[in-house]
Amino acid sequence: VAERLGVAVLGASGYAGALSAALIDRHPRFDLAAITSRSGAGTSLDRLYPHYRVGLELIDPDELDTGELAAAIVAYPHMAAAPVVAQLLEAGVKVVDLSADFRLRDLGTYEEWYGHHPAPELIGDAVYGLPELYRAAIAGARLVANPGCYPTATILALAPLARAGLITDLVVDAKSGVSGAGRSASDATHFVSVDENVKAYKVPRHRHTPEIEQELAAAGSPVTMTFTPHLLPLDQGELVSCYVGLRDPDTSEAELRALYAEAYSGEPWIELTERLPGVRDVRETNYCAISVHKDPRTGRAIVFGAIDNLWKGTASQAIQNLNLMFGLDEDLGLAP
Amino acid sequence: VAERLGVAVLGASGYAGALSAALIDRHPRFDLAAITSRSGAGTSLDRLYPHYRVGLELIDPDELDTGELAAAIVAYPHMAAAPVVAQLLEAGVKVVDLSADFRLRDLGTYEEWYGHHPAPELIGDAVYGLPELYRAAIAGARLVANPGCYPTATILALAPLARAGLITDLVVDAKSGVSGAGRSASDATHFVSVDENVKAYKVPRHRHTPEIEQELAAAGSPVTMTFTPHLLPLDQGELVSCYVGLRDPDTSEAELRALYAEAYSGEPWIELTERLPGVRDVRETNYCAISVHKDPRTGRAIVFGAIDNLWKGTASQAIQNLNLMFGLDEDLGLAP
Amino acid sequence: VAERLGVAVLGASGYAGALSAALIDRHPRFDLAAITSRSGAGTSLDRLYPHYRVGLELIDPDELDTGELAAAIVAYPHMAAAPVVAQLLEAGVKVVDLSADFRLRDLGTYEEWYGHHPAPELIGDAVYGLPELYRAAIAGARLVANPGCYPTATILALAPLARAGLITDLVVDAKSGVSGAGRSASDATHFVSVDENVKAYKVPRHRHTPEIEQELAAAGSPVTMTFTPHLLPLDQGELVSCYVGLRDPDTSEAELRALYAEAYSGEPWIELTERLPGVRDVRETNYCAISVHKDPRTGRAIVFGAIDNLWKGTASQAIQNLNLMFGLDEDLGLAP
Amino acid sequence: VAERLGVAVLGASGYAGALSAALIDRHPRFDLAAITSRSGAGTSLDRLYPHYRVGLELIDPDELDTGELAAAIVAYPHMAAAPVVAQLLEAGVKVVDLSADFRLRDLGTYEEWYGHHPAPELIGDAVYGLPELYRAAIAGARLVANPGCYPTATILALAPLARAGLITDLVVDAKSGVSGAGRSASDATHFVSVDENVKAYKVPRHRHTPEIEQELAAAGSPVTMTFTPHLLPLDQGELVSCYVGLRDPDTSEAELRALYAEAYSGEPWIELTERLPGVRDVRETNYCAISVHKDPRTGRAIVFGAIDNLWKGTASQAIQNLNLMFGLDEDLGLAP
Repeated sequence: VAERLGVAVLGASGYAGALSAALIDRHPRFDLAAITSRSGAGTSLDRLYPHYRVGLELIDPDELDTGELAAAIVAYPHMAAAPVVAQLLEAGVKVVDLSADFRLRDLGTYEEWYGHHPAPELIGDAVYGLPELYRAAIAGARLVANPGCYPTATILALAPLARAGLITDLVVDAKSGVSGAGRSASDATHFVSVDENVKAYKVPRHRHTPEIEQELAAAGSPVTMTFTPHLLPLDQGELVSCYVGLRDPDTSEAELRALYAEAYSGEPWIELTERLPGVRDVRETNYCAISVHKDPRTGRAIVFGAIDNLWKGTASQAIQNLNLMFGLDEDLGLAP
Repeated sequence: VAERLGVAVLGASGYAGALSAALIDRHPRFDLAAITSRSGAGTSLDRLYPHYRVGLELIDPDELDTGELAAAIVAYPHMAAAPVVAQLLEAGVKVVDLSADFRLRDLGTYEEWYGHHPAPELIGDAVYGLPELYRAAIAGARLVANPGCYPTATILALAPLARAGLITDLVVDAKSGVSGAGRSASDATHFVSVDENVKAYKVPRHRHTPEIEQELAAAGSPVTMTFTPHLLPLDQGELVSCYVGLRDPDTSEAELRALYAEAYSGEPWIELTERLPGVRDVRETNYCAISVHKDPRTGRAIVFGAIDNLWKGTASQAIQNLNLMFGLDEDLGLAP
Repeated sequence: VAERLGVAVLGASGYAGALSAALIDRHPRFDLAAITSRSGAGTSLDRLYPHYRVGLELIDPDELDTGELAAAIVAYPHMAAAPVVAQLLEAGVKVVDLSADFRLRDLGTYEEWYGHHPAPELIGDAVYGLPELYRAAIAGARLVANPGCYPTATILALAPLARAGLITDLVVDAKSGVSGAGRSASDATHFVSVDENVKAYKVPRHRHTPEIEQELAAAGSPVTMTFTPHLLPLDQGELVSCYVGLRDPDTSEAELRALYAEAYSGEPWIELTERLPGVRDVRETNYCAISVHKDPRTGRAIVFGAIDNLWKGTASQAIQNLNLMFGLDEDLGLAP
Repeated sequence: VAERLGVAVLGASGYAGALSAALIDRHPRFDLAAITSRSGAGTSLDRLYPHYRVGLELIDPDELDTGELAAAIVAYPHMAAAPVVAQLLEAGVKVVDLSADFRLRDLGTYEEWYGHHPAPELIGDAVYGLPELYRAAIAGARLVANPGCYPTATILALAPLARAGLITDLVVDAKSGVSGAGRSASDATHFVSVDENVKAYKVPRHRHTPEIEQELAAAGSPVTMTFTPHLLPLDQGELVSCYVGLRDPDTSEAELRALYAEAYSGEPWIELTERLPGVRDVRETNYCAISVHKDPRTGRAIVFGAIDNLWKGTASQAIQNLNLMFGLDEDLGLAP
């Protein structure tokens, strides 16, 4: 019988942490060793999230015993995550960090977009946790920086073009369900504010921008982009509509599709589709649905990427990363 | 030229107060003299509610000058309202109170359901502000207790049966949009909690129960009822489904409808309909749509009442009451 | 290695049939042998339902080869189902029928509510497919009549009271998501008709009424009830709010809860809860969440039952029945 | 007393026609003389649209008496509209045509995007019905081509930039509520298809593209654009997010805002706002809310335009046009 691996989720009272805990809980090889929440300590998770049916009690993070942990998922805000990640690593615990703290490889860029970095010495250890791009490195990592939800959809939607050096200009118009805004209640997340509404937010500077630019550049297409997210009246789901100026505007739709088919051949969680994908198609799954189109009048490529922001955009991708980090089948615990 | 009457709205940063202010603002005979909010003072109302397009600035309630006011709408929570109402009346200002403080004519009942009453001496002065039942008394009142949203729909749906003494048993299953829960952000009003959901709340004791029972008894049918509200994924609208045990179970549907037709003949804001009413039919109007049906298998009458909880259920009914209190056309400022 | 059992789904282009097919497709012991649809023949199921990811092609029902089938799920409208069920049984194929054709044990009742029965000789062979009530009989059946969605929630919510002979009077106010109305597009299922709306339908005679009354009577509480369904702006989910007149109105809430705890001890898919259940808690699961409350003012019990109408209300319950019919673990293929 | 003007609405059973009829019905100077619908003839409009409360009966278009009509609103599909428009004009009836038939001034462009034009001889008589751009011409027109909903929002959002010759490159990502897809029931408009979903449609060629390009060119900025609409889970409302490459990328946000302030000074239905507009802000109004931002990293302008697609995007703009055509106050009948 295979040994089971203890995994803790820190910050499990929020949407991302709670789903991470639920996925660990039903995973065939991981044990949900502990879940922490400063505000929720003493409550069982199923009181906050009945539909996850995880009866474990939340504990104060200060009471976490790292002794028997193989790994931890850290679901803290940026800046709060880094110090905790450092402690866990020191205790020999592998970490998937859901925050932005270790996603940017350039300290200066981090400080421009986020502020003073609490643990810059660890940046070099972190692997960007997009398995479709960094599978091998993730397998050997002790610290994986789980990508942002928008970057996940956008980078996957554009990586084949970026690798071919085709992207010369880029506008990404992103649409997200409300769970992306997190669990804290505010006027912006009140049902009455969101219902029958749609509007943009964080214009013109959303912090996922440098993360996307970093990965497109690393793939082969350095570009300064416009990224504009919008809040939609739905709970889970994220669609990015990418408008791409092409180095060679005469590239045909068939050529573009061939490029994608080759790039993503064998990828278990990428769905290439000719139909226009809706977020409903990937709801509560680890899939990223991608569809590439050519606008012959302008020469642009139009690429759509659809994910569930809480799953492939956050928690199920964290599981996918953990599977890789422990040499397990990448799909374990993620089947529908 | 007719004199214009100054009206203040106290507590105008909440949903009910803000809509009251907007309706006063577009009213042909009332002037929106002042709007108050302790937390929102210094902000203009259109920053909080762009779609109302009311540019007036919220002021601290302590700065309210009652000198030039003809009337005030008080949109405070129960217990907080009564002392303010008392001050306004003393200053010679007529009041429509949106809270529950003066709806119950029996002090003991108030104390059983709400607690210690802050101004019991005024209870006798208050008129229950349901124009379809108390039109004449409202016209002469200086203090009108605007009904709760559920009581408005339920009492209007049942008054003809109550007056005929027909009600022997009563279950009311009520469904409300989220605006009924007010503007304060909480887990319960977060979009993600409400979306794709429906559930009951305040079971088995919702405070609107004694208010409904009081009016049904006053009309002629004393009854102890079961009242159960449910929260629905929509913003504005309220449907009450009333299951009525009849004194004479053989009363036919035609007889019931004749009773309603006679009772509500000439009522401008009651819509009797044979079709099953939806809350969409009355959205953003002062209408109450009512449809009465007979269940021949059980002998029960099934009566549906649909209103917009923020309009006929609160703010537009307050305007209707103010119109009556100042001898104006009851419909003034309420046309679509 | 355990033998795999071939299962066909007839009428797989509708919501109920498609989900049945998807659940069979991911089941560890069943093989999805064929899916039929007269209108959709030649299309693969994933073109109609991308999120189910079932690539199998729909075939014309006339081309169905019953030779290798162990069982079939029939997802046809009432009256259309019975003749097909008869043919399948004759061919030695076990059947779970999702229609109403074999739910009512009394032919006269069927004819009163539905019309002329196409295969009355089979009524005696059918077992009512509510595992929590008829587990043993289902295990031995060749024809299982899968309950209606409303009856599933209502009967489960009331069975412990019915068995105790406690129900003397009953009003059920039911709320359903739009998937319950089926896939056919009409004014009633148009997004714009449903959004921001709630209304009752089929008042006062919904065909699920006699089915509920049959089972309550069989359990020990014959009662003539009022049943009123409402359409809500959500896709999947059903809540029944049951208002129960009790033979002994002094029964306490604690006694009622003890009754339920005993009745459902060990049931894998019944969730007894003190909190008020929302349909979100059971979305995309085979669970029925039940919560019983006492209204001390009226002596009524108020019982809430929440299910996913497409899952426990239809398709996953069909799988649960098939598991029983083939001697498999009742939970197989239903875990989250 | 001012003479009242008879106005008919042809095709009044659809969303656009029905709202046009309702707005005419409550207009202080227009009389709703007749409403037509081939499929709905004999039904009163309030059976189809209870919330509009227009009791007039729909008649067959063949029975329309044009003798007493001052004007007509034609709510027919493109190609079906033109012949009817021709007949009305011949009968001396002024027309606001809601279809695309007379929006494009170049016959070749029409034929490229729509097909054979049924009445090309009238193209020269038509005025493009965007009052903010063509107020004087509309006042003198007998045929006004009411703009498409997307073009209304987009052209208004970009006209100040276009007039200044600033637009060198353009991507428009548009989001619309479901009423924009019309009243006909289909899989695409079924509640279950739209709910919890978002996806693009008509990629890469939506027919509103040439209409937008025509007007931007006419204003001073010929540009070939990418236009991509998306369907959202809401009923009414449309947001266009415009990504504009500027001739002078160093233009500051302040300069851009000054340009807009000057361009729209005195416009009653344009709302310039620094906050990011949501469609809820303009729901059921004739307003277009516009907000211009500068992305300093890319040099692009980002402009948002929000309208209610059924109001300013269709029906209330038709009323605005009719007001102008008859020399009335432009706002008549449009106040909230």
